[in-house]
Amino acid sequence: MHVMVVNTKAYREGMGNEAIKIAKIMEKVGKETGIRMIIAVQHADVHRVASNVEIDVFAQHIDAIEYGSHTGWILAEGLKEAGAGGSIINHSEHPVTINEIKRSVEILRKNKMESIVCASDNEIAKSVAVFQPDYVAVEPPELIGGDISVTKTKPSVVKNAVESVRKVSNSAVLCGAGIKNGEDVRKAIELGSSGILVASGVVKAKNKEKIIMEMASAMVE
Amino acid sequence: MHVMVVNTKAYREGMGNEAIKIAKIMEKVGKETGIRMIIAVQHADVHRVASNVEIDVFAQHIDAIEYGSHTGWILAEGLKEAGAGGSIINHSEHPVTINEIKRSVEILRKNKMESIVCASDNEIAKSVAVFQPDYVAVEPPELIGGDISVTKTKPSVVKNAVESVRKVSNSAVLCGAGIKNGEDVRKAIELGSSGILVASGVVKAKNKEKIIMEMASAMVE
Amino acid sequence: MHVMVVNTKAYREGMGNEAIKIAKIMEKVGKETGIRMIIAVQHADVHRVASNVEIDVFAQHIDAIEYGSHTGWILAEGLKEAGAGGSIINHSEHPVTINEIKRSVEILRKNKMESIVCASDNEIAKSVAVFQPDYVAVEPPELIGGDISVTKTKPSVVKNAVESVRKVSNSAVLCGAGIKNGEDVRKAIELGSSGILVASGVVKAKNKEKIIMEMASAMVE
Amino acid sequence: MHVMVVNTKAYREGMGNEAIKIAKIMEKVGKETGIRMIIAVQHADVHRVASNVEIDVFAQHIDAIEYGSHTGWILAEGLKEAGAGGSIINHSEHPVTINEIKRSVEILRKNKMESIVCASDNEIAKSVAVFQPDYVAVEPPELIGGDISVTKTKPSVVKNAVESVRKVSNSAVLCGAGIKNGEDVRKAIELGSSGILVASGVVKAKNKEKIIMEMASAMVE
Repeated sequence: MHVMVVNTKAYREGMGNEAIKIAKIMEKVGKETGIRMIIAVQHADVHRVASNVEIDVFAQHIDAIEYGSHTGWILAEGLKEAGAGGSIINHSEHPVTINEIKRSVEILRKNKMESIVCASDNEIAKSVAVFQPDYVAVEPPELIGGDISVTKTKPSVVKNAVESVRKVSNSAVLCGAGIKNGEDVRKAIELGSSGILVASGVVKAKNKEKIIMEMASAMVE
Repeated sequence: MHVMVVNTKAYREGMGNEAIKIAKIMEKVGKETGIRMIIAVQHADVHRVASNVEIDVFAQHIDAIEYGSHTGWILAEGLKEAGAGGSIINHSEHPVTINEIKRSVEILRKNKMESIVCASDNEIAKSVAVFQPDYVAVEPPELIGGDISVTKTKPSVVKNAVESVRKVSNSAVLCGAGIKNGEDVRKAIELGSSGILVASGVVKAKNKEKIIMEMASAMVE
Repeated sequence: MHVMVVNTKAYREGMGNEAIKIAKIMEKVGKETGIRMIIAVQHADVHRVASNVEIDVFAQHIDAIEYGSHTGWILAEGLKEAGAGGSIINHSEHPVTINEIKRSVEILRKNKMESIVCASDNEIAKSVAVFQPDYVAVEPPELIGGDISVTKTKPSVVKNAVESVRKVSNSAVLCGAGIKNGEDVRKAIELGSSGILVASGVVKAKNKEKIIMEMASAMVE
Repeated sequence: MHVMVVNTKAYREGMGNEAIKIAKIMEKVGKETGIRMIIAVQHADVHRVASNVEIDVFAQHIDAIEYGSHTGWILAEGLKEAGAGGSIINHSEHPVTINEIKRSVEILRKNKMESIVCASDNEIAKSVAVFQPDYVAVEPPELIGGDISVTKTKPSVVKNAVESVRKVSNSAVLCGAGIKNGEDVRKAIELGSSGILVASGVVKAKNKEKIIMEMASAMVE
């Protein structure tokens, strides 16, 4: 099943009640299109959003820790109890060590939570796929937040990532960075990815329902 | 007014519903004793706890960021909207750069939130007090989580911290590390501190109401 | 050709003139046994050691930077000019992000320097091998500095690392952690590794020549 | 005595033999003007530069460690043995935690080495001065590497830094960021600083002797 992940980052337009609004639109569109919807929100928003919708709510980061004296760090178990079903790991805006990637995937798996590990190119995609996360999201950092999608500028990155990941893992590949419309999404699917990871393209859109529907529809087979 | 800060860390016993239970006991004891109560919880717990009690709910850490593309980082504005009234900064389990300390205090102040900056000795207490946080919490890291309180082993650290901080700031000094009973608390107040920062001493106690009451009572003038 | 890498860490016994002494013994033993010798020294020692011996001198870490405004960071080009032929990357005592691993390997290759990327288990070994470093050194961190060698306690880690790495790369596998004598070394070679990475076992030995000769001899086919 | 510190960063023009050339010019100008000269070079260059000149050679960074298992980290003792007389700490391009600043100053002092702690504004200058480093260098990061000097744009930052530091410490204040000519230097001294910290203004100058002489002369009382 194709999946659409919306990352609200630390955007004012994706925080608190705004996050709930986006999640509700995603829930509605998800029901209509059959596309799996995941919203990755700020840690403080996980419980509120998860209490208001049935779609999956993810965190944007966890720390590679378990219960204990870890003041201020992000505990997977705490997020799980708050309603999170998984987490992004190693986003280019929050890179971690390779051991932390491995450990975080393991901790999430142990808690029956899903993992989306970000990779800035196809070689890194293959490298992180070794840890068997549920998803590997390929996002060339220079395109993140921009207006030109990775599917247009660097289609080979996506294609190579899909092939490289397949060699070492069953992780599904998501495609991110600069995705702005249905055409970008269609191209992402054509290149072999299982879905998309979007942020500003949805969160900062004026008509959020329109763009979410456009993107989701482009994934319907 | 004296203040009692309980830091739930990433303890299983201080997470989710457990955090709410502790907060409710603190609220009750706070009303009875007149001591100001602050509970510093995991980010994912802020909203749930703040929705259930009237005492102040703090975060255990914020990142020195503002709205924007900061996937996975902790935004003060997001915590504020979730109900937080402030945050711990630079806990010895989550040290940050000196510029991040300054910036975090400023960001909290701008959002009308309070700051508790941790310091591992009296010299560092003076150093961070320059940034005029609301509270400076002195915690020798070697005593954190232990059974011997700073007031017993290193009373001079607390006394010197109070004097040093006063020279450069109006920040109130809190006393932490190894505080386990009313006697430790009384000593902390005698040494000039304005309150205490406790974690395992409360969160891992079998009878939480008893120990919270004992500690709070020891602060009543 | 089998290789013996001695990492002097920040040991007093492996610094400055002591590093030169160890390097000279390694040079002598290398000539006698035909084993390739590499000494990885502190950055400040690279030039002095490299000026005194013909064996390869490596750094223990580089930062993933190139020429520019990077006060205090470690530049591969600077080490190269000082006489270094390569560097260790991602030692468990100095972990870096996955992007930094990739970038560091690339920067070293561009400067015609060799790379030894450390990995704490066979899965991480496979993951870093994707970046095609010259060497992948497998070192379970819990055994580093100890008295029980990885070849005794966890022979399967070494064997699996060799097989896993082979699937994605031509990188040679080194074996580290707790290696103390010729028998440990023989076992490492038997398990398929191309050599060893040792630190305290050599640097803190009373009779350095004896142990270096014992270890090198064990690698002679 | 006034002091001129030249930071060669990771500049190609300040590495290896180029660093030695700059150091020799500084030595010559220092003898002629009586201004104390310090060159802060890459770690790999410390020994070579220190072996070739009599002026002080500093590192651009040390890690807050002592002898031990610290692969890849920068040990003050190792730099000392290589000929370094001190180190920059907390440069805005290499920020560290407040505990690391304190610890690094202590480690340098214990090794009879001098410390230059960088601060991006006058408040941070006061904060780090609490640890009694030999020098506090005030450098607004937005001016570093630029063409407009701090003495022109933000003279009050320098003046306030000098006054703030004096309240808590005897540390001498250096002035940095954008210093390009003798006039900038004269102004820095007028504002109460004890010298300057320069980088590109000297290292990237075509006629290095001319600019070093111009800057040093401007500090002669």
